This record gives sequence, structure tokens and C-alpha cells, in this order.
Amino acid sequence: MPRQVVSHRDGHVYEFGPEMDPVYEAADGEPLTIETRDSLNGAIQSDDDLLDAIPDEVNAATGPIAVAGASPGDLLAVEIEDVRVAEDRGRVLTAPGFGLRQDDPEIDRPATRITEVDRDDAGGSEIGGGGRIDFEGIDVPIEPVIGTIGVATGGETVSTLTPDDHGGNLDTTDVTGGTTVYFPTFQEGPMLAMGDAKAAMADGKMCGTGAEIATEVDVTVSVIADPVVPLSRAVVDTGDAVKTLASAETLEAAVELANGDMLDLLAYNHGFSHTEAYLFSSLVGGLEVSQVVDPQVTARNAVPSEYLSLPF
Amino acid sequence: MPRQVVSHRDGHVYEFGPEMDPVYEAADGEPLTIETRDSLNGAIQSDDDLLDAIPDEVNAATGPIAVAGASPGDLLAVEIEDVRVAEDRGRVLTAPGFGLRQDDPEIDRPATRITEVDRDDAGGSEIGGGGRIDFEGIDVPIEPVIGTIGVATGGETVSTLTPDDHGGNLDTTDVTGGTTVYFPTFQEGPMLAMGDAKAAMADGKMCGTGAEIATEVDVTVSVIADPVVPLSRAVVDTGDAVKTLASAETLEAAVELANGDMLDLLAYNHGFSHTEAYLFSSLVGGLEVSQVVDPQVTARNAVPSEYLSLPF
Repeated sequence: MPRQVVSHRDGHVYEFGPEMDPVYEAADGEPLTIETRDSLNGAIQSDDDLLDAIPDEVNAATGPIAVAGASPGDLLAVEIEDVRVAEDRGRVLTAPGFGLRQDDPEIDRPATRITEVDRDDAGGSEIGGGGRIDFEGIDVPIEPVIGTIGVATGGETVSTLTPDDHGGNLDTTDVTGGTTVYFPTFQEGPMLAMGDAKAAMADGKMCGTGAEIATEVDVTVSVIADPVVPLSRAVVDTGDAVKTLASAETLEAAVELANGDMLDLLAYNHGFSHTEAYLFSSLVGGLEVSQVVDPQVTARNAVPSEYLSLPF
Repeated sequence: MPRQVVSHRDGHVYEFGPEMDPVYEAADGEPLTIETRDSLNGAIQSDDDLLDAIPDEVNAATGPIAVAGASPGDLLAVEIEDVRVAEDRGRVLTAPGFGLRQDDPEIDRPATRITEVDRDDAGGSEIGGGGRIDFEGIDVPIEPVIGTIGVATGGETVSTLTPDDHGGNLDTTDVTGGTTVYFPTFQEGPMLAMGDAKAAMADGKMCGTGAEIATEVDVTVSVIADPVVPLSRAVVDTGDAVKTLASAETLEAAVELANGDMLDLLAYNHGFSHTEAYLFSSLVGGLEVSQVVDPQVTARNAVPSEYLSLPF
């Protein structure tokens, strides 16, 4: 099947809601290349470009993309084959009222550092996978992250700045090339959109951003009808581990949700009672932090693949 | 220097306070073997042994051990050379009022599963490093964790169930063989004690325990006088990463403290401004969860060793 390109120029959203009009209708199992622009729509191009406030329109998510045959209760599997950076610089920055250390008087807000992309001579001269960014003379390998990715919601309308059960601004380092993200389907469609990528990002995204950058993302979208274990929220399979993702107002609430979702998967996989799944979850893998700076925070519960296979 | 053995039979504590009487006085740089009993003092030996409540005396910490020459403001470096399990079984369990998912009606409290130790035929027949535990027919590699480790406090008296700036019940998977833990020194001494080990534990310790087990721990204790970067809380060097550890009432507060401590280390190492350290911390490594079930929770900020060397 030829790989269709869907660009932010074709359409993008700043909200996930229950009713979304697709810019492209994909077949079940269709490969796509999705072009995303940086989260700040190109506004920050030098260290002198400062962000005085978070814009109303932030985290443009390319799409939405309908996938034929996905109905509520089904899952949408988004296999991320590759994420390539598509410009010669990223940007990491602070802005007033944003970031983990709000009360730290030694931190300048706003502040910007451009992270130039170094082409990877060893791995080909094109900007893309591989390569490094430069932060104040320090080389950091490009390990792209798709910050915002989600589907139409069950009812509410949610800014692309906020993560919730539909996905959205999950800011999860595992959402990258080589992994598959499974979303619940709340609406026919189920209307996939993504953007807000980073060339590199720490778990936590403490200052409020990673190295924000435009990307090209190769994905294959597939429908899983009537999954034997239903999902309430996204799950990522990295190949090395299965990770449940949950967002909530506090990290405590997010990790409790992520752990609960993991218990359902462990119980099904091993024939465990709910109690046994809970005990086992306390022995292997564990809780991880995705981000602590968005209007809701995001955490995950990871279990190594040797102990858990997804049943779909 | 001969390796002195300090056993829980020689002395152990259930509290860290400002005044602690040593059971052993070590020289600066002295190697020791520390014997620890399991966190529940041997009370749980079969699946039928249930814990109806957390005992008043829990997490017996062998010690305290004085180290000559450590004064307030100095650091105590505890190089953990090896942790060997010292009994043929661990135990993972729930207890009423304890654990992450307090409101989950499908979880039995109390519930116990004994995790038998499988000797590692490939690596020698002794119980020790290597080997596996069995959870309901699933092999889990033994990756020991020292749950409680700390020093005399700055003033308050803190149960060994609670982590704080002095260490204590940090329940951090990185506190294991091959890593070095650096503690601030609040009192002459500074009165090291440790116990509450696990044969395996997930980040988060969601059900309230890992596989609790007795151990023998080989350490070398050293004093770092007048560190160029003072520490307020413990830091771990795993060889692969440097991790600041912080405990607080909420994960949000703990990660903010851990990130703040990391900024001081990054700024010193790279000559960064505080703002640059904050931006850089948002690009590499990141926030991690130690445990979410103790009276204070514990989190860490990890930075890979390629980006950070401790200045002591």
C-alpha cells in the first residue's frame, strides 16, 4: 500500500473533542507519514525569541485521521515505525507560569536555548533519525518523542496542552520509533491526531519543554476489534516492556490508575487473581514518570516483556 | 583491612534520631559486612502467615555504625559492593491500610505469597547474588534492594518506616550492589544503619512490599570532608547514572526537591547558570519513582553518567 503523507498543512487541531472532522480517511492497516510542526508553530528561532506566555494555540496536532472500521470499544493500534526530525534546530525554554520549579527565584522565565541539530556523519547526511542536538556545547543524541498523540474523546473537549484518557499531551518518552501505542476508541473513527514532537526530552519534562522540533512520523494504523482486555487509557508496547499510561491531577492519582490498568493485563496474561497481579506488579518493572508540568500530569506502569504479552 | 561483620544481632534500630549510640566504630575507608534481617523480623514464613497491621517495630536497621572523622557538613560515602540474600525465601504481601490501591475492593488485605529462592546452578550453589525467586511459578531474577538505609538526623526522630533527608526507608531500587550512596552528615558519626532488604522490588513498591528478605551486605564506608557541592539529601551513583533522591508528602514535592538538588550538581559540573541547568535537566535522563506507599514518598532525578560526574 503506498504511504500517504498527511501534513499539518492539510489540517491540524488544538483540541480533542467528541466530534472531529477527518482530514484523511485511512484504511485499516494503512501506512502513513505524518508531518508535524513544532509545538510553538515556529515562533522560537533564536535564543532571543522568548515566550512570555503559553499561546492559546499550542501543540498543533496533525489530523485528525479517520481509520475505517474502528468503533467504540475497539482499539486503535498506532505502530510508530520511525520519527525523523525535519528542521535544523529544536528549542528548549521556560515561560512564566509553566514548569516544575515555579517557586525557584534563580530560574529565569522566560529563557530560551536553541538546540542546533548536528547531522550524523556516521549514519548518513540527512536530517532524520540518528544525529545529535547541541545544548551549550554538549552533544545530546536525538531520541525523538511525539509529545501529543490522541483520539476523539468520550464527550469533553480537551486542549492539546492537556493529557487525559483519550491521550493528548502525554509527553511520554516511549512514544517514539519502534513502539506501538494502543488507544481506546471512544468515537467512530477514531480520529487520530499527533504533533508536539521533541528531539530529546527527559522523563518529567521539568522546565516545561523538551527540544521542541518539527518531525516526519511513519506509522501504520490498525483496528483491533473487541479486545479481550478492554482499555480505558493508552498502553505502549516498546518491545522491551508493556507500559500503561495514565493522566490525572496528581502523580499519586496517575500512578494509581496506571497500576490498576496494569493489573487487568497481568491478571489476564497469567491467570492471576487481582490480588496476585497486585503483588506481582510490586516485584518487576514499576512506576515511571512521563511529565509533571502539563495541566494534568502523566505516569506509567512498566512491566518487562518477559513477564507480559499484550493479548491483541 | 579485615572485613568486620556487623549483624542485626549486635544491634539494630527502629528509629533514626539525632542521638544514636554506635554498635561499631569504623575507620574511614573500612570495609564491612552488614547482616540484615527481613523487614518483618521473620514473622511471615508461609502463605498462611498474614499481616493484619504494620507492626510498631518494622524495618530493623542494623547499626548504627560510627565512621571516624565525619562531621556535620561532610558526606558519608557508602560503596555497596555486594548484596547477598541470606535465607531461602522472601515474602511479598498486602496489609490493611497499606499500599497504593487502598480503595480497590478486589484486592485482599491481608494476603501473602512466599517467594522461594531458587539457587542459581549456573552461578554457584550458594544462596547469594544471582539466582531467582519464584512467584506463583514465574521466575524473577534476584536483584536485591536495600530498602532502609540512613544516618542520624538533624533533630527529629523518624521511624524506619519513613524516608526523609537523612535517608531511612528510601525503598530505591538503585540502592544495591555496585552503587555508591552519598549521605549528608548531620551529626558526628554519622551513624549509618541499614536493613529492610528485598530480593526484588518494582519501582513504586505498589502493594507495600517487595520480596522482603534477609541479606548480607558488603560495603566500604568513607568520609568526604567539605564537599564542593554540599548535599541536603542522598545521592546515588550507579555507575550508569547519578541520581538525586528526595522524599516528601507528595510525589510532586519529592520530584521538585530531587530536580532542585540535581540542578546544583549540573551547574557545578558544566559551569551552567541555574536556568541552563534546569533546561538541560529537561532533556536527558529524568524523574523516576522510588516508592509511593510509605508515610512519605520517594522520587529521584537521574542524569546519565556521560553528562554528570560527581565532584567528590
